[in-house]
Amino acid sequence: MERNERDDTKVENDHDLEDDHGHRKKDKKEEQEEELSVERIFENQEVPSWRNQLTLRALVVSFVLSILFCVIVMKLNLTTGIIPSLNVSAGLLGFFFIKTWTKFLEKSGLLKQPFTRQENTVIQTCVVASSGIAFSGGFGSYLFGMSETVAKQLTEDSDAFKNPSLSWMIGFLFVVSFLGLFSAVPLRKVMIIDFKLTYPSGTATAHLINSFHTPAGAKLAKKQVRVLGKFFSFSFLWGFFQWFYTAGDGCGFAEFPSLGLKAHENKFFFDFSATYVGVGMICPYIINISVLLGGILSWGLMWPLIDTKKGDWYPADLKPGSLHGLQGYKVFIATALVLGDGLYNFFKVLSRTLAALFFQLRGRDATGALPVADRSSPETSRISYDEQRRTHLFLKDQIPTWFAVAGYVTIAAISTTTVPHIFPELKWYYILVIYIFAPALAFCNAYGCGLTDWSLASTYGTLAIFVIGAWAGGSHGGVLAGLAACGVMMNIVSTASDLSQDFKTGYLTLSSPRSMFVSQLIGTAMGCMISPCVFWLFFKAFKDLGTPGSQYPAPYATVFRNMAILGVEGFSSLPKNCLYLCYWFFGAAILINLIKDVLGKKRARFIPNPMAMAIPFYIGSYFAIDMCVGSLILFIWEKIDKAKADAFGPAVASGLICGDGIWTLPSSILALAGVKPPICMKFLSRRTNAKVDAFLGS
Amino acid sequence: MERNERDDTKVENDHDLEDDHGHRKKDKKEEQEEELSVERIFENQEVPSWRNQLTLRALVVSFVLSILFCVIVMKLNLTTGIIPSLNVSAGLLGFFFIKTWTKFLEKSGLLKQPFTRQENTVIQTCVVASSGIAFSGGFGSYLFGMSETVAKQLTEDSDAFKNPSLSWMIGFLFVVSFLGLFSAVPLRKVMIIDFKLTYPSGTATAHLINSFHTPAGAKLAKKQVRVLGKFFSFSFLWGFFQWFYTAGDGCGFAEFPSLGLKAHENKFFFDFSATYVGVGMICPYIINISVLLGGILSWGLMWPLIDTKKGDWYPADLKPGSLHGLQGYKVFIATALVLGDGLYNFFKVLSRTLAALFFQLRGRDATGALPVADRSSPETSRISYDEQRRTHLFLKDQIPTWFAVAGYVTIAAISTTTVPHIFPELKWYYILVIYIFAPALAFCNAYGCGLTDWSLASTYGTLAIFVIGAWAGGSHGGVLAGLAACGVMMNIVSTASDLSQDFKTGYLTLSSPRSMFVSQLIGTAMGCMISPCVFWLFFKAFKDLGTPGSQYPAPYATVFRNMAILGVEGFSSLPKNCLYLCYWFFGAAILINLIKDVLGKKRARFIPNPMAMAIPFYIGSYFAIDMCVGSLILFIWEKIDKAKADAFGPAVASGLICGDGIWTLPSSILALAGVKPPICMKFLSRRTNAKVDAFLGS
Repeated sequence: MERNERDDTKVENDHDLEDDHGHRKKDKKEEQEEELSVERIFENQEVPSWRNQLTLRALVVSFVLSILFCVIVMKLNLTTGIIPSLNVSAGLLGFFFIKTWTKFLEKSGLLKQPFTRQENTVIQTCVVASSGIAFSGGFGSYLFGMSETVAKQLTEDSDAFKNPSLSWMIGFLFVVSFLGLFSAVPLRKVMIIDFKLTYPSGTATAHLINSFHTPAGAKLAKKQVRVLGKFFSFSFLWGFFQWFYTAGDGCGFAEFPSLGLKAHENKFFFDFSATYVGVGMICPYIINISVLLGGILSWGLMWPLIDTKKGDWYPADLKPGSLHGLQGYKVFIATALVLGDGLYNFFKVLSRTLAALFFQLRGRDATGALPVADRSSPETSRISYDEQRRTHLFLKDQIPTWFAVAGYVTIAAISTTTVPHIFPELKWYYILVIYIFAPALAFCNAYGCGLTDWSLASTYGTLAIFVIGAWAGGSHGGVLAGLAACGVMMNIVSTASDLSQDFKTGYLTLSSPRSMFVSQLIGTAMGCMISPCVFWLFFKAFKDLGTPGSQYPAPYATVFRNMAILGVEGFSSLPKNCLYLCYWFFGAAILINLIKDVLGKKRARFIPNPMAMAIPFYIGSYFAIDMCVGSLILFIWEKIDKAKADAFGPAVASGLICGDGIWTLPSSILALAGVKPPICMKFLSRRTNAKVDAFLGS
Repeated sequence: MERNERDDTKVENDHDLEDDHGHRKKDKKEEQEEELSVERIFENQEVPSWRNQLTLRALVVSFVLSILFCVIVMKLNLTTGIIPSLNVSAGLLGFFFIKTWTKFLEKSGLLKQPFTRQENTVIQTCVVASSGIAFSGGFGSYLFGMSETVAKQLTEDSDAFKNPSLSWMIGFLFVVSFLGLFSAVPLRKVMIIDFKLTYPSGTATAHLINSFHTPAGAKLAKKQVRVLGKFFSFSFLWGFFQWFYTAGDGCGFAEFPSLGLKAHENKFFFDFSATYVGVGMICPYIINISVLLGGILSWGLMWPLIDTKKGDWYPADLKPGSLHGLQGYKVFIATALVLGDGLYNFFKVLSRTLAALFFQLRGRDATGALPVADRSSPETSRISYDEQRRTHLFLKDQIPTWFAVAGYVTIAAISTTTVPHIFPELKWYYILVIYIFAPALAFCNAYGCGLTDWSLASTYGTLAIFVIGAWAGGSHGGVLAGLAACGVMMNIVSTASDLSQDFKTGYLTLSSPRSMFVSQLIGTAMGCMISPCVFWLFFKAFKDLGTPGSQYPAPYATVFRNMAILGVEGFSSLPKNCLYLCYWFFGAAILINLIKDVLGKKRARFIPNPMAMAIPFYIGSYFAIDMCVGSLILFIWEKIDKAKADAFGPAVASGLICGDGIWTLPSSILALAGVKPPICMKFLSRRTNAKVDAFLGS
């Protein structure tokens, strides 16, 4: 249910608040300015004004693509619940549509405005915003978890249900979805200019878009495009090849026990995902190592240890995946670690912002920029041409903070008054509390996503379920209140990370933040209309929607409802020592950050990142291994031929990420068309294999 | 049961009787002489006299290794019946032992004679000759097929058996095994100097040995050694990695249905064998294409078509693998094609030899060399330094043909008189007939093995079973006669190809043919003693030897006995139209060769090779796909960087072959120690997978 999004940062991470980032990129700088400057290539291309970036044709294409992607996401929501990133597909298909159209017009001599990369980014942003709603709308999770179908499957609180209906779903989404947008606006500058976060898949998209629009004559760029194209094709074909072997659960390369079956049980394996190898090539080494460390700490040490306490700390006869058991530790300890790191950084930025504001009011440091982390002046002066130009354009069309704050408060007020009419169980003060804390959590999620490409929206949603569910209590419809609260929370948190990704793409393609914001507004509005309609189609067309074993089982609807039921019972229902461990890890996250800040830049880069460590806690460390493989490839490549690795590494990584990303499109279409893969590549232990052979032989 | 051996030809295939070979290597020549000359590197190293190549320490090491390899081969004989090539392992281990010993002596100042590559080759040859007996002795096939254990498992002729006993086995091997040796001697020059056959794994071994002994200071050679080492390690580790997934039949990468399950059923798949990818890189393109064509013709067209005639051409209710059915077509059509091509070439060489002899007697063309295929003088003059030096040394210590012929006749006479005492069913005139035809078949096998690295000894053995079995008839103990005849035939044919491989290694390491011959004599004698003893150990230690389902089922013993039973019934018992098709293919093989000879060198290189085409007929085309992958890699490499591909291609190929070859050693030891791989990577169709999941779930 975790939703992963990506973006890559390529070459411009020179000096950095997160010291982790700075190191490995530093010595690349000199060459970059000579040969790697993307913006020098585009120097002669005029950047259109933000109004001209928003064209009618772009919006028409966005609308068509939005419907396409909504259908795909909805289908995935209702079948497995795992939604891949569609950033890349959106960028590519947008390019394809408009390019065909403009070529056609060009030939007939009617072309008024050429197709620019900014326009392409606008389409991509709009589609991502719109199809994002299909996920964060919770049609496969909290929203459908309220329905009678799901309620009747469980024994507890089966009378508390609210069946889907087109009218209230659209209304709910409209009052809830725009908040994420406004909370993302102030994050934009912090995440991208100050923190210089990687956002792997967003950067990969930007690379793709840049490469499509590279003017003729740029030699190195052409070479990079060719490398990107090569790895794009490889990654796409590899995805296609893998598909054939995935008939059934636990089949295919994604389940390859490359480190043995025992390690595979504990989620230690290389899952052959080209995406995460690419992500690993883009992320700084320390992030990859942190993720791996987190995996070893959790799945290698803690979970097996806690498992031995079965029957003591928690009942031994629980279903696998019950939050009363081991799963509870996983979810809540990960959440504690994420919250600890996220909140520390949130308050750090907040305090500095306030300090800056204070100094500004007293007349000092009038630049208006945040005086973030020991940014030393010699480094500032060495900012590359690309970075100068990007930052300049990124900061040109500012969206005033007062506008964002005002928008947030207004919509929050509307939402607080209207949502209780839709869900009487969700009192207005619950919503108010969510809206007070949401920006902090949105910050955490956008930050984590920028670091590792994983959006933990569901984790924050879970948190809302628990807090609000426990607060409301069982007697006051806590289950529905919890699920609705989850919706309110997830919409903000998920949108914040999605849009930060997009802003990164925009930053790298010199798109105006203002045109992007408008595009996101339009996209969100589209999504609020399209998604419920598409869901309604599925709901009416497939009567057994949500029934286990049917074509559309919507597995996460039950999971979310289960969590809500647990939440109503309060934190006391958590397994033994779980809350205690949560405190510990929350504290540890803060401590690590403190140590980092005390140590100073040079030594701090050897300190692992708690946010990155938390991600494998919940989902396992297979993707950590992918990322480390990516790191290793880049490391060896740099040892062999540093110049080449620097010039082509990002292109290879982007190719890997994009090819795999685009493959999700045909694979989803195959799934929609009911075409199933023919072969299952299965991994059995010797003993099981002997049994199976005997069974098949008889 | 097919036994594969290998050897590679690297750089010196310029002009060639088989025009196929000449083309792709031609333009490499110029560079070779400047940078690729191996022998220039070794120029300053004195080649020891043939007597000095045969050292006591080499023979001691050979003896120890012979025992080791005999145990391994025997174990494999009795479990799966598939024996990998041990050439490389023998070379490597020989080097390791002696090097340790000489280093030790060097340090203590006692070293009298330095370790040379010739000495290394002598060890390798001796061990191959000795462990070859463990295979061609038929302990897992014809010889054990005579035993009571196997006889009682089948209904027909179950009274005709001869239980193993140490005395007659040793006697039989001694009178039979040396014939192959003497028949290989005259082939030596034809195959290696005149035909310039590739012998992929023999050449790979030579490369390995050369690289071990490369004197310090040779720059390109050092680079090549490093490349070889890299790919050696990769290939070894890849073999090791694959091993983990092979718990059980049909498991692992070797069963990967890379082209779909349907194609896999028809043996079209890439089996991830580093060996055959390497072989494909060494073999000329036309050979690889011929193998693939043969695979498409047989498994893609003919077998499926014949399968539709089930119930018409042959009974539908046969067991799979019965020679009365489809399997019969496979075995006999392949044999016909091999015989057609082999005999054509045999008679071609024979007629030319006789013509040369005739001219020589009349005083013309006094060089003594065979005036083989339009060898044009401009080409002859361009012979490289390596080739000159190698040919010079290869022809220096000649073994006179009269000696080989006399040896063959003497041993044949002894054998003809003694073998009927061991097997009364095998009349002396049967043996005489075998000995008359055997040299031609030995020629065919050595020739085919030189082309494609596959020894088809079992195919020729099958032929003997049929001919002699049918001749003797059921009433005169035809089953035992057939099996014994198979033994006589296989020993000659298998040894001829083994030793030709060795001679290729010797040619490339400047080893004296005379020292190699002596080493082979000693090795064969060792093998005749060691193999029966090792078998005896197994036979006495495991009482259920040969029982299906036991630890040592010896599957091919039953297969061979079955073939003998079929043979007794005569050719008329073959399925309908099988003999007819055999005539056709025999004729086609001759026709193709005729066309080739008529067309002339230039155009003939586009004509496929019938011998190469025949191999996948029987065993399937998976290895053809491996080889084509190797070809493709080399082809692309040559397109990108011809100079590099030419310099390092052979090193990469040898590395791939040798690494995989050495891995057989630890894998065999693991098997002997009873360590079984832990995981089965299984490939199931979607439907079967659903069934299995239901079975495992319940």
